[in-house]
Amino acid sequence: MVVFERPIKFEDVDAAGIVFFARFVNYAHEAMEHFFSPIEGGYAALIMERRTGFPAVDLKVSFKSPVRYGDTLRVETRVAKVGNRSAVFRYRMFNAGTGHLSAEIEHTVVVSDLRTITSCDMPEDVRARLCEHLDPIEAT
Amino acid sequence: MVVFERPIKFEDVDAAGIVFFARFVNYAHEAMEHFFSPIEGGYAALIMERRTGFPAVDLKVSFKSPVRYGDTLRVETRVAKVGNRSAVFRYRMFNAGTGHLSAEIEHTVVVSDLRTITSCDMPEDVRARLCEHLDPIEAT
Amino acid sequence: MVVFERPIKFEDVDAAGIVFFARFVNYAHEAMEHFFSPIEGGYAALIMERRTGFPAVDLKVSFKSPVRYGDTLRVETRVAKVGNRSAVFRYRMFNAGTGHLSAEIEHTVVVSDLRTITSCDMPEDVRARLCEHLDPIEAT
Amino acid sequence: MVVFERPIKFEDVDAAGIVFFARFVNYAHEAMEHFFSPIEGGYAALIMERRTGFPAVDLKVSFKSPVRYGDTLRVETRVAKVGNRSAVFRYRMFNAGTGHLSAEIEHTVVVSDLRTITSCDMPEDVRARLCEHLDPIEAT
Repeated sequence: MVVFERPIKFEDVDAAGIVFFARFVNYAHEAMEHFFSPIEGGYAALIMERRTGFPAVDLKVSFKSPVRYGDTLRVETRVAKVGNRSAVFRYRMFNAGTGHLSAEIEHTVVVSDLRTITSCDMPEDVRARLCEHLDPIEAT
Repeated sequence: MVVFERPIKFEDVDAAGIVFFARFVNYAHEAMEHFFSPIEGGYAALIMERRTGFPAVDLKVSFKSPVRYGDTLRVETRVAKVGNRSAVFRYRMFNAGTGHLSAEIEHTVVVSDLRTITSCDMPEDVRARLCEHLDPIEAT
Repeated sequence: MVVFERPIKFEDVDAAGIVFFARFVNYAHEAMEHFFSPIEGGYAALIMERRTGFPAVDLKVSFKSPVRYGDTLRVETRVAKVGNRSAVFRYRMFNAGTGHLSAEIEHTVVVSDLRTITSCDMPEDVRARLCEHLDPIEAT
Repeated sequence: MVVFERPIKFEDVDAAGIVFFARFVNYAHEAMEHFFSPIEGGYAALIMERRTGFPAVDLKVSFKSPVRYGDTLRVETRVAKVGNRSAVFRYRMFNAGTGHLSAEIEHTVVVSDLRTITSCDMPEDVRARLCEHLDPIEAT
């Protein structure tokens, strides 16, 4: 499990006064970027230099309790599955102040060559990083 | 079924050159806003005057093919289920130019009093609008 | 003058309950995209096919009155100046419902080759479109 | 001067492959939030509890060189002016890797009661924090 904390931003809330639901998907992506930060050059080098990315093919979000501006989100990232060319991430997002679960996300990605947006073999350093935090009990 | 078309915006793409996956959730919300536009004052009056909203409790997205800047998205909105205090929307999003399916989204909302963010009875005009486009065969 | 209307989106407001100030810059860009829509293929073809773009070099915004979710913005776009490789747009943004001026923006762009992000000569159709709405009295 | 560093996010770039110009205004706001973090409860408490905010009345941005995904922005925040109910911030934004100046922003805010969005007296702790980093030579 990899932990990532980020404060809710001023512009993340919506006209209902709570964090806009689509933002949680942005947070999931930030947590994935953070997850890959130990790889040389981080996620950015994967994307910009190696042109290898992880387009989503499937996403499931379960919203548990709202968060607001002033709250900090604590995201726990696990890897539920590692395939030949795909992986499943699971994020549990908590209000860091209260400990309440705010959202759970399951995020399936396919390793892709960004020049063509077609699947490709998983680089070894990506696989190693994924397997380091493989926690299949968490899969649904 | 209600149809909503919107061009992809310049800033909707990401560093991989395709529309960022979280944006599809924004598009789903836009399609829902558009769905409720025949209600008096539209979705905005529901939110700002009647303080009745539709926080998401569940979201499932299946990504089929990428879209890019210059493409127009055609979103077909159906209602898969209407409960006492909840509803399930289904969106099918197509690349309007090629006809390719780009994403399918299932979006479960709970009718809520935005003053307290707690569930409340569904207003009659909201129920009527939902039932008008109820298409349960589409439910998964 | 070219007029562009767009409703304020649900997620455009911030934790203060009014449209987040940075969004007005997004609206300016949308108005510019709309301004170029009569060009063949629109702004998207300029960017994606011809790889010609208009990076900003200067921006001045004067905020006059806040807008909220439920409001519609009416943007009047004028061209204050056309140079060899640059142009200055002026946007006046009104609350379409009340007629109140909400923001004024002056936006200086440099015609650029997006492959290198360096300035380039202005295509003739771009110049023609700009000159069609040149209104130098509006320049500040 | 207060320094704030933040990596460019994956979704901050646009269809031209560089950071979308409106994002720099978001970064300015983030830098302002960071500037006020030593105040008790931070900027969030000002907004959410004390209902005191800083709507922008004027904004000037000068764009110097583009930044891309993978770059980190180093933002230097100074206070150019402190008035009775207003303040002027100046942000200099650098590519932290190359040291190149990317953007300069001047941002004038009015201290406001967010319940009514009208100006109000500046709280003493806000004034003290502003005066701590007052650097009038930087004013334009």
